[in-house]
Amino acid sequence: MLIKSLLHTENTIHSTLDIKKWIEQRNREVKVQVDRVPFSQLDKWHIDSDGSVRHDSGKFFSIEGIKIETDYGNKKSWTQPIINQPEVGYLGILTKEIDGILYFLMQAKIEPGNVNCVQISPTLQATKSNYSRVHQGKAPHYLDYFVNAKPNQIILDQLQSEQGARFLRKRNRNIIIKVEEDVPELEDFRWMTLGQIKEMMGYDNMVNMDTRTVLSGLNIAEFTSLADDLTLMGYRGKDYLLSATTNHSLYNINNHLSWLANLKAKYDLFVSPYPINQMDDWQLKDDEISRPDGLYFRIIGVNVTIENREVSSWCQPLVQPMQEGVCAYIIKKIHGVYHFLVQAKMECGNFDVLELAPTLQCLTGKVPSNHEHRPVFYDFIMNAPKDNIIYDVKQSEEGGRFYHEQNRNMIVEVGDDFPIEVPERYTWMTLEQIYQFLRFNNYLNIQSRSLIAALNYIN
Amino acid sequence: MLIKSLLHTENTIHSTLDIKKWIEQRNREVKVQVDRVPFSQLDKWHIDSDGSVRHDSGKFFSIEGIKIETDYGNKKSWTQPIINQPEVGYLGILTKEIDGILYFLMQAKIEPGNVNCVQISPTLQATKSNYSRVHQGKAPHYLDYFVNAKPNQIILDQLQSEQGARFLRKRNRNIIIKVEEDVPELEDFRWMTLGQIKEMMGYDNMVNMDTRTVLSGLNIAEFTSLADDLTLMGYRGKDYLLSATTNHSLYNINNHLSWLANLKAKYDLFVSPYPINQMDDWQLKDDEISRPDGLYFRIIGVNVTIENREVSSWCQPLVQPMQEGVCAYIIKKIHGVYHFLVQAKMECGNFDVLELAPTLQCLTGKVPSNHEHRPVFYDFIMNAPKDNIIYDVKQSEEGGRFYHEQNRNMIVEVGDDFPIEVPERYTWMTLEQIYQFLRFNNYLNIQSRSLIAALNYIN
Repeated sequence: MLIKSLLHTENTIHSTLDIKKWIEQRNREVKVQVDRVPFSQLDKWHIDSDGSVRHDSGKFFSIEGIKIETDYGNKKSWTQPIINQPEVGYLGILTKEIDGILYFLMQAKIEPGNVNCVQISPTLQATKSNYSRVHQGKAPHYLDYFVNAKPNQIILDQLQSEQGARFLRKRNRNIIIKVEEDVPELEDFRWMTLGQIKEMMGYDNMVNMDTRTVLSGLNIAEFTSLADDLTLMGYRGKDYLLSATTNHSLYNINNHLSWLANLKAKYDLFVSPYPINQMDDWQLKDDEISRPDGLYFRIIGVNVTIENREVSSWCQPLVQPMQEGVCAYIIKKIHGVYHFLVQAKMECGNFDVLELAPTLQCLTGKVPSNHEHRPVFYDFIMNAPKDNIIYDVKQSEEGGRFYHEQNRNMIVEVGDDFPIEVPERYTWMTLEQIYQFLRFNNYLNIQSRSLIAALNYIN
Repeated sequence: MLIKSLLHTENTIHSTLDIKKWIEQRNREVKVQVDRVPFSQLDKWHIDSDGSVRHDSGKFFSIEGIKIETDYGNKKSWTQPIINQPEVGYLGILTKEIDGILYFLMQAKIEPGNVNCVQISPTLQATKSNYSRVHQGKAPHYLDYFVNAKPNQIILDQLQSEQGARFLRKRNRNIIIKVEEDVPELEDFRWMTLGQIKEMMGYDNMVNMDTRTVLSGLNIAEFTSLADDLTLMGYRGKDYLLSATTNHSLYNINNHLSWLANLKAKYDLFVSPYPINQMDDWQLKDDEISRPDGLYFRIIGVNVTIENREVSSWCQPLVQPMQEGVCAYIIKKIHGVYHFLVQAKMECGNFDVLELAPTLQCLTGKVPSNHEHRPVFYDFIMNAPKDNIIYDVKQSEEGGRFYHEQNRNMIVEVGDDFPIEVPERYTWMTLEQIYQFLRFNNYLNIQSRSLIAALNYIN
């Protein structure tokens, strides 16, 4: 039923073309105006005595300063602002079997930071503030299905981390439920197959980050039985399936746990509060918190007006990146089985020191001219022959917090000549192993998950 | 090889009786003098301006104050001192195959807080300060074997948590290695089989907490093959083995992950620094940090003198409990398979909000007289018929930090009349599931692991 959903992109309730047109039409119809305003005019928000940006209610999220001390990497200590949102939100997708195929109820959701204003989003995106009604609004659509879901309705239910460089230990509850009763398809919602959503992930900035993280947890192999018809599955899809089921792996899971225990013991990460207005490298100005050298990101205040069926307007801070980035996995067949080149990477907001990141995850704005100072595998990936690039799409970060942030997502296949020996912080994992880590919280980082979600089983 | 080690307690290098005598003899020979001293006389330690107790080097550990805010349990907010030791130490056991049996090199180790001064300890207990030589001492014995261990020598290698009510997010690297070369048995060390160590766990305070946590990670089923001779395994051992291999479980692992995701999303835990000398419920006195109501624990300063082959003497703070405690698992056969009644429990120092604790984990000093106010299952376990009690032994906490702290460890088997329906924070897990959680860090708490380590496969 899930496999049918994965492999069916035609004769579906809505055609993929119609869904694309619908998103494009919503993008034309909806007027989103995002105006920068000084922090002093950020309605319902204020700057604290230490320079942090907080909501007057004390809820939602805040921009706070932290000091990082670590023995990982070249920089031993720095200060930076970070988003603090110490509550677990729902990212939920509602599914239903229709004519033997599992359909996912997806939303055309507007977020102020989106490069295009509307993206395909989960059925439900709700912060704890949302669903506990802090802002006195009405309950999000379909919330009750999730709150009342019984264990036998739950297809997937995992805590997963957000961007460790931008969020302080933030996690969301990624959940997929399946309901039996009739579910209305409200105006901003459409039923789609998993295959259609994955097809849409092949277009720039069409599927939002929240959708990608939820779907990343679906281990296709777990839902495949011998009776499933795999005629529509491509040769690479079958290779992914093999990688997700085999135990013919270069290393076993205990090797990986030991590798990670060693690295987590080796590197310290100390994070403590630090006033933003006392930072040397960051300036708190009237209308932004930024660095004189223009690097990394800045915090801006915006007034958002969305003209839709009803006009709504609010103020909030957003994080605006100053550099684009790239997230790329190198994959390689070892003894005939796809292995992913995984990196144990520290980011200051990580819940657990190191998370499993893609082979390459870095900013591309100001790369050192000296090749030796560039991130490992940077040159290799950026110069990969076109034939080796399986996937190369720009994907957005969460538009509710990030302003026009997109990263290049890539999967590059390498051949036998690529060495199996890799530096200490890197290792080769099969998909079976990646999914073992993925289901336990705070192992795979969100950039990894975005790429795992993009694996396409049809072509 | 490991199974032989598990089942052999006779015809071993040292008889169990000799090992017991050796520990008793060491206890008689070694003079450990622990004298309370005021904090002002605690050499190399000082009280900070906020009342925290710190080593002059800034290393080792410190006693700091924290404020806890949570929506878990009846108490929404409190302050307390806690041990902060933000580094990952080694707890390592060296093993070697001798005459076809795997032997564990165990140490008779003296710790100032031990109720009896000497307990059976891992080959290596080393803090990062230890092995990076902060205190200018010589390297711990056998350290090099661990530092230089190759992947194929590693039997087990996991990060595991310490007591969440006493340590702030503390973790240790639990590691078991197997070496091929000859290893000298130094004076304070003896080769023992796994069966002998488990037999010793049947005596009060004989095997220290560090040994128990390391051994808890050994999933016996993983090391058992069809060719192993299980003649010496008892009927209950075989039932444990079944529980550790079967997939005939009441719930599956995805059910458990969902149960835990829901609880972790539901309960918030906010921990922030709070000056000890400004706490309402705690007093910083000349010679102790304690509560006027005498509850929970106090921090004392001690001068330790150990007269052994050489005299050594030092000062340090210790945590002294004011109440005894109990940690108990209820186990029950469901469809013929042992299931453990696991509790998701929040403790303020937990790395990840909730960890999997035994069915009952509480202090027993001042239990409410009203039965309804007592912890769930308290009365049931404390009044269990003798025939249902599989295990009932006093076990010590780590004597390097805790002064005379021991908790009653119990395993109680219940029959068909015990209900399968349990409160929200409780669930039934097979050993197979417990071991799945155990290998990933910060799931099973140390009290759970102590009981899992105690499972005896012989009787």
